[in-house]
Amino acid sequence: MKLKGNCLVGQSGGPTSVINASILGAIKTALASDVIDTVYGAKNGIKGVLDDKLINLNKESIEELDRLMYTPSAALGSCRYKLKDPTVDDTDYLRILEIFKKYNIRYFFYNGGNDSMDTCNKVSKFMLAHNYDCRVIGIPKTIDNDLFGTDHCPGYGSAAKYIATTIMEIKLDATVYDKGAITVVEIMGRNAGWLAAASVLAKTKNLGPDLVFLPEKPVVLNDMLNEIADFYKKNGSCVVAVSEGIKDPEGVYISQYASMNVDKVDSFGHIQMGGLASYLAYACGQKTGAKVRGIELSLLQRCAAHSASKTDYLEAFEAGKMAVLAAIDGQTDKMVGFKCDRSNGYKCETFLLDLEHVANYEKKVPLEWILEDNSDLTKDFYDYALPLIQGNTELEYDNGLPLFANLKKIID
Amino acid sequence: MKLKGNCLVGQSGGPTSVINASILGAIKTALASDVIDTVYGAKNGIKGVLDDKLINLNKESIEELDRLMYTPSAALGSCRYKLKDPTVDDTDYLRILEIFKKYNIRYFFYNGGNDSMDTCNKVSKFMLAHNYDCRVIGIPKTIDNDLFGTDHCPGYGSAAKYIATTIMEIKLDATVYDKGAITVVEIMGRNAGWLAAASVLAKTKNLGPDLVFLPEKPVVLNDMLNEIADFYKKNGSCVVAVSEGIKDPEGVYISQYASMNVDKVDSFGHIQMGGLASYLAYACGQKTGAKVRGIELSLLQRCAAHSASKTDYLEAFEAGKMAVLAAIDGQTDKMVGFKCDRSNGYKCETFLLDLEHVANYEKKVPLEWILEDNSDLTKDFYDYALPLIQGNTELEYDNGLPLFANLKKIID
Repeated sequence: MKLKGNCLVGQSGGPTSVINASILGAIKTALASDVIDTVYGAKNGIKGVLDDKLINLNKESIEELDRLMYTPSAALGSCRYKLKDPTVDDTDYLRILEIFKKYNIRYFFYNGGNDSMDTCNKVSKFMLAHNYDCRVIGIPKTIDNDLFGTDHCPGYGSAAKYIATTIMEIKLDATVYDKGAITVVEIMGRNAGWLAAASVLAKTKNLGPDLVFLPEKPVVLNDMLNEIADFYKKNGSCVVAVSEGIKDPEGVYISQYASMNVDKVDSFGHIQMGGLASYLAYACGQKTGAKVRGIELSLLQRCAAHSASKTDYLEAFEAGKMAVLAAIDGQTDKMVGFKCDRSNGYKCETFLLDLEHVANYEKKVPLEWILEDNSDLTKDFYDYALPLIQGNTELEYDNGLPLFANLKKIID
Repeated sequence: MKLKGNCLVGQSGGPTSVINASILGAIKTALASDVIDTVYGAKNGIKGVLDDKLINLNKESIEELDRLMYTPSAALGSCRYKLKDPTVDDTDYLRILEIFKKYNIRYFFYNGGNDSMDTCNKVSKFMLAHNYDCRVIGIPKTIDNDLFGTDHCPGYGSAAKYIATTIMEIKLDATVYDKGAITVVEIMGRNAGWLAAASVLAKTKNLGPDLVFLPEKPVVLNDMLNEIADFYKKNGSCVVAVSEGIKDPEGVYISQYASMNVDKVDSFGHIQMGGLASYLAYACGQKTGAKVRGIELSLLQRCAAHSASKTDYLEAFEAGKMAVLAAIDGQTDKMVGFKCDRSNGYKCETFLLDLEHVANYEKKVPLEWILEDNSDLTKDFYDYALPLIQGNTELEYDNGLPLFANLKKIID
């Protein structure tokens, strides 16, 4: 069962605060193994394989590698390259096989979301069909938390912690004046509302959003604006958390309204808004006369490693480590998932899922967890999410600023 | 010289991450003094005085008060109320005098920016003219760092640390793909560029902005776009830090271009942009075909106490404390300022300035500190600003989230 050779680690899709913790788990475990010789990193994911750009990670110092635990974004570089269906065009797969043979890659670990698991699955099947012995394991990541079959995804906890923390701070700021305001905070999530849902965790400190809108529950724009206006009129201020992906009952993104309406030009011919947050803030202002502000958390929610969750990065590390141990143990064509027990404290264990069962299905927030009046989520959500944001980063600071990993990235 | 009586503390203007540290310094020093009996907080600044809404701070627990050190926004509430010229209309001043007499306020400390120092000055002069013995001292705050006569302002260091940290994280994220992008980050500062300048501190970790534009140096929009496009074409990606207040040579804000141009409607009738960041990002995309993103740091830069500078909050506390000690010592009609010595390490001491010399003059970034090619600032800026961002917050966390002060705010 012992398969000797080299190992390749790659990252793909949008980065997170802890995706580097996952490859660190994989790299350190591979470096310590007696069956794996050289540990390569694919520069910009599968694109780097196609371009023959493999980084020799044995040449990095352990000190610098260890900083990956606290470094956001994807240190090896990422890509959004989608492999074709190999039954239609197998050019890319033949090239990958060629590169794997050239570098004697016998272990391949790919760290990403839905699309990356699909890539893993196809590469794995192709290698098998061509009798090239290579063990392929997917390591999940996504701030969106929408991967099927796993309790949650590495990356979500840190994004959730940042979002809840930031909402607390925004709430304190947005309610500071004697005259209140309407503040709309736009949070990532095209089809799953896990990230915007995380804003309600701030309610445990009495500083949560007053209203929250998720993509899982369709909204009629005018009803939504009335709800916000009513809350504002009654309470003097309103902080709204909204997923970028909220849709009307016909499935049209509300953000599309923002780009379709030219009546947003005011009487001076000034255009008043940009994305969804600005659009909703402007519309609320028109309805109420309130002072309004739209805030888009943008990239910050996925890269703010200075506010990472310790639980999240430790689990991310574990996922990478278990992927390598499983592969050495003979497993292939799997993704590492989490099984969690919250009945008596919080316990999280890794297990393996078949890759083909993971790809192309999005896990969403259960509709019954969202309160009818959009003011909150049920206790189920708090029980689910609070364990994932526990603990703070141990990120090292130097001269007042974070010390992130700075790899040499030597191409062999 | 001993003046016995009660003390009033108020906060005004836009909040910061450390303005509560300043009032904590004032409150604790006042509580410990044998000449001051009750310590009141003005609810929503001078508005609370006019409305007879004074919070009795003696009724707060010390444990909760101590959390003010790490709590963003203005815990007593703020206002943007501007007092009239008392020679034109002294209604408000007579009311303030009435309230001061009612509560035997003999010490008044007002914590804010330019306008608040102007308020302090007018109140102080009015009390003197009406033979009411009350000592008035201003405690500076502003993330903009534009107050005259002091080396720097409490609030700036934390905002600067957050901006530099966030730019580092954005830079890592924005350059992660094989195909680069143009990312425009909009930072607060209408007339002074201190905040946007702070972005370059990230260069000390090789993760700074590629170009930086401040209000002090007029820009011709097309030249600016060409600079960004050229950098992008040469390097494959470009991160730009820009003050919200950049102006053209005629003094017109570039952000006004954003709201004036209706040619931002594309061929599908979609409006592509919102504020300055989106506008510039869109214009860069049109010029280069690059993937673009505009990010506005918005409120986050002034309220992200989770990323506060320890130097900043300790100095903010000291400013509040010294204001009270000076007043007890007989001083009035002054603002606390900082004098700093950077010749051998960093030393910061408080001193007193005449209030009338502070108000209505904005301190700007020296033009000669900005490099001709907009790529950086000179060493002068680093020497000036780096000491201000040293040290991290000791903010307490509970169940994964910050534990901010939650005062009872009992109105007497």
